[in-house]
Amino acid sequence: MKENADVLVIGGSAAGLVAAMTAKSNYKDKKVVIIRKEEKVMIPCGIPYIFGTLESSDSNVLPDGGLLKLGVEIKVDTVTEINTDEKSCKTESGLEIGYDKLVIATGSQPTKPRWLKGRDLENVFTIPKDKVYLDGLVDRLAGFKKVAVIGAGFIGVEVSDELNKRGLSVSLIEKEPHILALAFDPDIAIEAETMLKDRGVDVLADVAIKEIQGKSKVSSILLSDGRVIETDAVVLSMGYLPNVQLAKDSGIQINALGFIGVDEYLRTNVKDVFAAGDCAEKRDFATSKLSKTMLASTACAEARVAGLNLFKISTVRKFKGTIGIYSTCIGDTAFGVAGLTEEAALKEGFNIITGKFTGMDRHPGKLNNPHKQSVKLVVSKECGRILGGSVLGGVSAGELTNVLGFLIQGGMSISDMLVAQIGTQPMLTASPAAYPLIKAAEAAAKNL
Amino acid sequence: MKENADVLVIGGSAAGLVAAMTAKSNYKDKKVVIIRKEEKVMIPCGIPYIFGTLESSDSNVLPDGGLLKLGVEIKVDTVTEINTDEKSCKTESGLEIGYDKLVIATGSQPTKPRWLKGRDLENVFTIPKDKVYLDGLVDRLAGFKKVAVIGAGFIGVEVSDELNKRGLSVSLIEKEPHILALAFDPDIAIEAETMLKDRGVDVLADVAIKEIQGKSKVSSILLSDGRVIETDAVVLSMGYLPNVQLAKDSGIQINALGFIGVDEYLRTNVKDVFAAGDCAEKRDFATSKLSKTMLASTACAEARVAGLNLFKISTVRKFKGTIGIYSTCIGDTAFGVAGLTEEAALKEGFNIITGKFTGMDRHPGKLNNPHKQSVKLVVSKECGRILGGSVLGGVSAGELTNVLGFLIQGGMSISDMLVAQIGTQPMLTASPAAYPLIKAAEAAAKNL
Repeated sequence: MKENADVLVIGGSAAGLVAAMTAKSNYKDKKVVIIRKEEKVMIPCGIPYIFGTLESSDSNVLPDGGLLKLGVEIKVDTVTEINTDEKSCKTESGLEIGYDKLVIATGSQPTKPRWLKGRDLENVFTIPKDKVYLDGLVDRLAGFKKVAVIGAGFIGVEVSDELNKRGLSVSLIEKEPHILALAFDPDIAIEAETMLKDRGVDVLADVAIKEIQGKSKVSSILLSDGRVIETDAVVLSMGYLPNVQLAKDSGIQINALGFIGVDEYLRTNVKDVFAAGDCAEKRDFATSKLSKTMLASTACAEARVAGLNLFKISTVRKFKGTIGIYSTCIGDTAFGVAGLTEEAALKEGFNIITGKFTGMDRHPGKLNNPHKQSVKLVVSKECGRILGGSVLGGVSAGELTNVLGFLIQGGMSISDMLVAQIGTQPMLTASPAAYPLIKAAEAAAKNL
Repeated sequence: MKENADVLVIGGSAAGLVAAMTAKSNYKDKKVVIIRKEEKVMIPCGIPYIFGTLESSDSNVLPDGGLLKLGVEIKVDTVTEINTDEKSCKTESGLEIGYDKLVIATGSQPTKPRWLKGRDLENVFTIPKDKVYLDGLVDRLAGFKKVAVIGAGFIGVEVSDELNKRGLSVSLIEKEPHILALAFDPDIAIEAETMLKDRGVDVLADVAIKEIQGKSKVSSILLSDGRVIETDAVVLSMGYLPNVQLAKDSGIQINALGFIGVDEYLRTNVKDVFAAGDCAEKRDFATSKLSKTMLASTACAEARVAGLNLFKISTVRKFKGTIGIYSTCIGDTAFGVAGLTEEAALKEGFNIITGKFTGMDRHPGKLNNPHKQSVKLVVSKECGRILGGSVLGGVSAGELTNVLGFLIQGGMSISDMLVAQIGTQPMLTASPAAYPLIKAAEAAAKNL
């Protein structure tokens, strides 16, 4: 059986979805087909919340309505081979499907490092974007009292907080000096760590894991300092690896970090083949270095660029490098970061200054669930440009982080900030006289 | 008694505060003095909330701590005369104070139009930024059952909502077709109006007020269509007029709209005299036309520019024109706008397109008090630049409005938005695949 698609997208998560929707809505006459493995696709960033706040993973399904309404065809199947000469793919079910343009959005899978002894014991889990596996995991965890989460990146932290909410006794183990240490400077990371501890998670930072112990099932974890942590189960959140085997087998170039090589239009080295999302090469916005940052929001941006440039490329629709705009929550406190942290900027050799400000996110500070709000800006000393920054605050800190992201993308400088206008409202924002981004810019200006 | 200040600021509200703080923190050796009329200064945007949510106006006082900590001197007094030749001011208490640089930040006062018969009856009130008057008003209102608010701008709407919360029967009368009609396009204005009605405020729009009736006290209001609204009290929120008499009397130029004329450094026509805030000239960011927009946030931006440029001017620290970034709340719903509305853009002759998107402000849309979120972008058809936009949403819509404001200030275009990166988090923002600003940009791109 052979079919043809104008645009074939492999993968149905964030990048696949956005690539297909962008393709179909910009090139209406083209036949756009998604092939994905999953019957129901998980909202990637929502996954940690199926362990606590959400009642079921069914509340965390990426809706197909938008795709179907646009006229994108969805096939649940697994692509086993890409033939880039014949421009066609074969699938597990025996389908052969030709394409004019191909978008590879095969995503990533959790790392389960080979060096980790005990990694295959019973009750050692990971967090893949796989509903069936995750539903099973939620069920299994219900029978446990103690769980150890290995790796305190965003997913490890959010999963720990949710499992703790659900009543499990959670140990979170991190080899860096603090949780979230790769995303945030120590000031914010320490604040986040303290909050997570106060909420009852047993955080063990600055210590590596040596092995997972047990006979057939997990019984404990041996740490590098000799401590033994007893546990019923282990959740590995030690990062993700791009799924590139399919691309590699078809002769598409893989970069030095193991991602599918792409240019600024998200084109691979093979004509008419694009890649986007976790599996595709990323370069840092500030340094242009290859990067491993995987974010659903970055994936969506890449996929949008891929979709726009499928049939004609445009210099104003290039992807300009990964900024890395993240946020997370611990209880009612939100933490966000965009662009370079102070530590990363110094490590890369940027000549920087910083500026900080702490205030309240409402004014007067008694209205409408007020929350402390802190901003730090990382600024190039030569030109005053904003290279990055971080935010701590209440629920609006997510959008405040996006303000930061747009300051970076707009190439705005401290001088721009000093004369910038903002909108403020007592129930919604900080005071106009103490708007944190502007006050942090003032503080930075004094260090220029 | 004669004193001298290096920088003398007249007025202690938002503009005066920020001008003085900016001056003192950028020019540490200068003696900076504020003369203000009020012992305690009200946070201007918080005033509506003293009528309901806040227990007392004492919770809405602008703190002096920041000024005092920096070393700004505060005098509670009234300036009666500025002598720009001798560079000195006289005050009500008999003080004479010389200045090197003067910043006039005398603010504005509520309009009480001369044509309005009955304006001076007992129980006709306004909303000045005067704690003593406002405390009296709060006390008086406690004795009433019915109150009519005239003028449904931001203050009228917020005061009505708060008085309604407090149990008063509130009629809100507006001559425009809808509440908030000067700030928002009808789509959002109608939604706001419906919510305010649902909350119990009796909104009478599209009808003018003819006169306030009563013998010595207010008893009713006669509308232009002949209806008579019985009421115990009237609150006039019909706009504000700049306080310019002091400047005018000293020979400083006043512009055609009645504001103190200033350039982009906030300098008046008289050497070493600056003006900022509600009393100072405003020009629209997009049209460069004189504008009457008075906002505490704009006042702070102007004051910061004035403060920075007092002793040396800098082209990168010019004020670039008033964008007008507002937000407000009705219940749990926030409404925001930045830059040109669709109606204003068309009226001014811009060739525009718009793009809209409605989604949820969390993802999945069941987490953390989700709220519907809508964005409309107003875009120049020639160049794709974002000229303005509006937002409806939950509590993070205030910062989302600021994102919009920075897109305008950064000169960003629809193409920039199509390749833009954002940060998303389930508890804090919309989904990365349905981030409203980017989806609205996509919709606008299709109309380009």
